[in-house]
Amino acid sequence: MTADESAPSEQALTDRVVASFDKAASDRYRQVMTSLVRHLHGFACEVRLTQAEWDTAIEFLTRVGHLTDDRRQEFILLSDVLGLSMLTVTINEPGARGATESTVFGPFFVEDAPWIELGGDLARGHKGVPCYVSGQVRSTDGSPLPGARIDAWESDEDGFYDVQYEGNQTSGRGWLTAGPNGEYAFWSVRPSAYPIPHDGPVGELLSAAGRGPMRPAHLHFKVTSPGHRPLITHVFAAGDPYLADDAVFGVKDSLVAEFVEHEGGTAPDGSPRDGRWTEVTFDLVLAREDGQ
Amino acid sequence: MTADESAPSEQALTDRVVASFDKAASDRYRQVMTSLVRHLHGFACEVRLTQAEWDTAIEFLTRVGHLTDDRRQEFILLSDVLGLSMLTVTINEPGARGATESTVFGPFFVEDAPWIELGGDLARGHKGVPCYVSGQVRSTDGSPLPGARIDAWESDEDGFYDVQYEGNQTSGRGWLTAGPNGEYAFWSVRPSAYPIPHDGPVGELLSAAGRGPMRPAHLHFKVTSPGHRPLITHVFAAGDPYLADDAVFGVKDSLVAEFVEHEGGTAPDGSPRDGRWTEVTFDLVLAREDGQ
Repeated sequence: MTADESAPSEQALTDRVVASFDKAASDRYRQVMTSLVRHLHGFACEVRLTQAEWDTAIEFLTRVGHLTDDRRQEFILLSDVLGLSMLTVTINEPGARGATESTVFGPFFVEDAPWIELGGDLARGHKGVPCYVSGQVRSTDGSPLPGARIDAWESDEDGFYDVQYEGNQTSGRGWLTAGPNGEYAFWSVRPSAYPIPHDGPVGELLSAAGRGPMRPAHLHFKVTSPGHRPLITHVFAAGDPYLADDAVFGVKDSLVAEFVEHEGGTAPDGSPRDGRWTEVTFDLVLAREDGQ
Repeated sequence: MTADESAPSEQALTDRVVASFDKAASDRYRQVMTSLVRHLHGFACEVRLTQAEWDTAIEFLTRVGHLTDDRRQEFILLSDVLGLSMLTVTINEPGARGATESTVFGPFFVEDAPWIELGGDLARGHKGVPCYVSGQVRSTDGSPLPGARIDAWESDEDGFYDVQYEGNQTSGRGWLTAGPNGEYAFWSVRPSAYPIPHDGPVGELLSAAGRGPMRPAHLHFKVTSPGHRPLITHVFAAGDPYLADDAVFGVKDSLVAEFVEHEGGTAPDGSPRDGRWTEVTFDLVLAREDGQ
């Protein structure tokens, strides 16, 4: 990998660093760290990294570290915009035929979101056009998964999650359990495209790269059911202008669905509607833990 | 590089991330970042990075960032123990025939160290056995470099630099200028082997790797002279038990010199000595800026 790029003295140094992991506490640690060292050194040799660039990298990482706290995780953002988060998702995709594909978890999940009843309201004051979300949770063999737990969370129409506001409001997030035939439904709002936080070093990276900070509109799902691998995914809104340009590379074609626009009339749950509302249908298909 | 290791969906993702740098502000930025992305992704694919390992990496970097402040630079330590600092030095080595080799700068240089006269005392209260350091500063063509500026700094016999103590003492560091024939000399103390700071995440890395934190005894030099490339190097003490085991990979054979032990007698500068003292001779040969 580095042999073509590096001088003998450079290759000898890389070999010495790799050998320093010979007595590692576990085989896996040695495997991961020696691969990391070879690739890190391969990168530096390939670009002939200058001392000034090394200085810049140290200073950049220092700022990423100092910006990171309980409310903001700039290292995750960095991993996201370098595609490492999505690559890790892809590497660990179960690959079971017919399972819903995964995408990035993101930084906006909250552990203690409220429970709502099947068909209930998850918006709870979240700003935006009402949206009826429904579908079926099933296994890859087609059998429904009654009782599956579905967590959902999303931005409001201004592009913000509840946790990005001051105060402790909880809105636009919650969990429910699938019904006897694996069916699920809830009311929320139509999600909006939004920029990832870009006022820090990761924002500077995006600027220097000539890239934008936007993510296309999406609704997050985390779905669990006994005997199945947890599914972490989004449903993206078809037609969003940023679908081909997601700052964190999270879009997969199979995850894009139509958010159908309505004006008045009757919703699928039989409720009469005044004004604009939307509707999306998205089935959630889980891979079995045994890989079958 | 990753083609053998990664599935088509993984390779496609890497290609998309690389392409996202197409509109970078400069060709160099694009070159560096796309190489970084390819190697980072190549690493993740090669080891089949798990989600839990990714979580661990984010948490590790977060702690490195939070430990870094004006007095401690844990990112530099991390770069040091992964061999990246020494590799960057090696990549940027002028390679002029006969020039003194470079090594890592380290985190203990101070900008406003005191001036001392030629032959003067740089120890200024630093603890340890007195050591007479001398040699010649010259160019690779053999011509002496009178007036060259020599900065030197080192640990005391307990393995600590002045800046690692509480308070604002300055000891074991200073600068002087070479004499008419490029000659230099000063008194200091014999440096000691010491552990790099290892009570943080980098220390955990060393433990998990089964590696020690020690650096062999050394004296730092930074040497500058008009028309020449700055030289940043150490002289290491021959016989030190950690020469083959430097935690930051800084040792080069050409930088190891004998620290000759004496008991009483007369020093090279004619001064009478009581008790133990040591002596090291180390010439400092600078490469010309034009590479000749």
